[in-house]
This record gives sequence, structure tokens and C-alpha cells, in this order.
Amino acid sequence: MEILPEDLSWLSIYNILVGSIVPRPIGWISTVNLVGQPNLAPFSFFNAVCPNPPHVLFCPNVRGTDHQAKDSLLNVRATGEFVVNIVTEDLAEAMNLTSTELPDEVNEFEFGDLSISPSKAVRPPRVAESPIHYECKMVHIFDLGDQPGGGSVVIGRVVHIHVDESVLFGKDKIDVTRLKPIGRLGGNGYCRVTDLFKMVRPPSQIKVE
Amino acid sequence: MEILPEDLSWLSIYNILVGSIVPRPIGWISTVNLVGQPNLAPFSFFNAVCPNPPHVLFCPNVRGTDHQAKDSLLNVRATGEFVVNIVTEDLAEAMNLTSTELPDEVNEFEFGDLSISPSKAVRPPRVAESPIHYECKMVHIFDLGDQPGGGSVVIGRVVHIHVDESVLFGKDKIDVTRLKPIGRLGGNGYCRVTDLFKMVRPPSQIKVE
Repeated sequence: MEILPEDLSWLSIYNILVGSIVPRPIGWISTVNLVGQPNLAPFSFFNAVCPNPPHVLFCPNVRGTDHQAKDSLLNVRATGEFVVNIVTEDLAEAMNLTSTELPDEVNEFEFGDLSISPSKAVRPPRVAESPIHYECKMVHIFDLGDQPGGGSVVIGRVVHIHVDESVLFGKDKIDVTRLKPIGRLGGNGYCRVTDLFKMVRPPSQIKVE
Repeated sequence: MEILPEDLSWLSIYNILVGSIVPRPIGWISTVNLVGQPNLAPFSFFNAVCPNPPHVLFCPNVRGTDHQAKDSLLNVRATGEFVVNIVTEDLAEAMNLTSTELPDEVNEFEFGDLSISPSKAVRPPRVAESPIHYECKMVHIFDLGDQPGGGSVVIGRVVHIHVDESVLFGKDKIDVTRLKPIGRLGGNGYCRVTDLFKMVRPPSQIKVE
């Protein structure tokens, strides 16, 4: 099938993107608004950018119902801060609860029956049950596309990292069989990360002086 | 473990990022240089941005050996174009071959024993064996961080999509059990996307006028 994007509805394009760019990691993003009220929502248009210094990004799109900007984006714009909480199998149901659109006054931490831990370097709190957190200061927000169906790229510099030692091995490796992350697929689909294999990268053929 | 990024080596930070932001989708990026010579390399700091119009991004870091910019980045800077080829289980070995650093004059399509298909709207060719391709025009490149260990965010607008009908169901859904994608983990780790489950998002509690 040959598709010119302008010939297909943005919802169909969305279905193709989320069904083919898989499996996606989930950034469970906590933020606060200007009066300190916390918000928590999952984003799968999320990834690492680079390690030195560490940066991550996520791409909020507008809300599905009323096509308004999500609170996570509004809060990062207002405060310049966010925290990435890593989602595990045990946290899948709670994460899913926080994916729904709630009125401003509802606290997603309470809605998902989650505990709050204070952060070290930023105001948004952490999901206490999550084993890894990246505290971030926003460095860039870029808005792309038209509404509905446009999005923003929110890039944050990681200023503090928390790693629960139960998921570590060696000094800096994460054991995926202990972390038990989940991946996001299209539609209502998710995967567990259990069917593992390894491939060793062939040696570089670049000559280094 | 509490980590201040400035207190840990960027390689250790890299290990934590790639071990915890998992599973990552793989964008197998084809480009050409100014004289039309093709390049092909996989990137797992890759994701969708938004559907209207469709945008995707990937984040090349510098090469591991000589800390120079990767050819993919140089080519996108020079030509403004790239193609995302979706990687399947059957293509895993070939993708891994193209992940190594090769001298400029070596064509990764030949090195990976892959066939070339011309694209419709951009000069970089497609991996014929891949079932889904996104032809992209670069709209922004942002450079972040210090070298080595810094990276760039390359955002592209999707101008043409190819979907092999063997992985489609309905008019716009991708069947993950037919696509058989793979996910990238830390170290040499990968996962197949076989341990599937579903969660239905709770209904929105936002009132739409």
C-alpha cells in the first residue's frame, strides 16, 4: 500500500505509526503546575537522546477528546521540570489508570493508588513504586504539525537519577529480567520483555589513528 | 543508588539509559551523501512524534570508536532526507551487520546482503526486504551535549509511506504478530514482541462541550 499522508486521515496515519514503530518504551511523566499540584501521565513517544550530559525526550500530542494540550505539556512549559518514572509489569495497571483524561482537580497519583516520593533536584514528585527515575530540566520544546494530531517534542536534561539496587548488576548495568519493563504497541496492545536474544555488533572497520 | 550525572562517566550513564529506557523501537535509517552513495544504519533512540502531518525523529550519537559524527547525520545535514525502514525478526542479522562502523566507501546494503528499492519522494533508497518504510524530509536538527557522548535530535516529516499488505489488517491497522518487530535493550540485548497483553484505557472523565 502506497500512502501519501495528505490522502489519509490523521487517525489512520496514527494507527499506522503506533502499529509499526514498536515496541515503544513508556515514559511515565510526573509534573507539577505553578501551584504545585502534581500530574502523572504515560507517553510512549519517548526515548533517550544522549548520555553526555544525559538527555531524554517525550512527544505529547493533544488530548484525544477535546484536542486541548495535555496538562503534562502545560506544566513543563510553566515550570521547566519533569520526572520520568520507569514502568514495570507490576505498575502496568496503575500506569493505565493514569492514561485517562481526568479533570484538573483529580490527582493521578491518588487515582492510580500510587505513593509519592519527593525528588531531589526538581519539584515534580516521583512514583515511589517505580525502580528508576530521571529528574529532568526542560531545555527545549518544539511544536510540530497541526491540531488535532500535531505534537510537541519536549527535551529534558537529566539532573538526577535514582536506580533501585534490586534492578542493578555490576556498577552500571540494568538487569532486564529484574526490571520487567513493558513495551507499548498499537491500539490497546502492550508486550512484556521476556523473549530475549543477543546479537554482538561486528567489530568496527574504521581505522582510528 | 542516587546518581548525579556529573559524578559518573558518560559511558556508565549510557549503560543506565539504554538498560532502563526499554524496549526501544529500531529505526533503520537509509540516507545518501551528496554524490548519491547510500548509507544504512540502525538507531534505537528513535520514535514517532505526531500523526498530523506525520513526523518521526531519531537521535544519532557520535561513533563509538573515533567519536566522529555518523554518516547518517552528515548525510541528512547535507541532503535533508532520510528513510526509516522497519526491522523485523527476519532482518535482525542484516540490521546488526549494518550497525558496525564501515569505511565510507563500503555500501551497507551490500554488506548486509540487502536489496535496494528506490523511494518515491526522496533520494535515499529503501531496504526492499523491510515491510514498512517512511520517506522523510528533515525539518529540524538540534545538537545537544558534549562530545563524546553528545547527540543530535533529527526530526523528519513523513512525505510517503509504504506498507506491505501482508502486515495489515482492516484499512489502517498493523498486525504485530505478522510484522514480528524486534525491540532494542541494553548491551547486546534485543527482544522479540511475542509476550503480548492488552489494557483498555479507562474512559475519559473530561467533559467535552
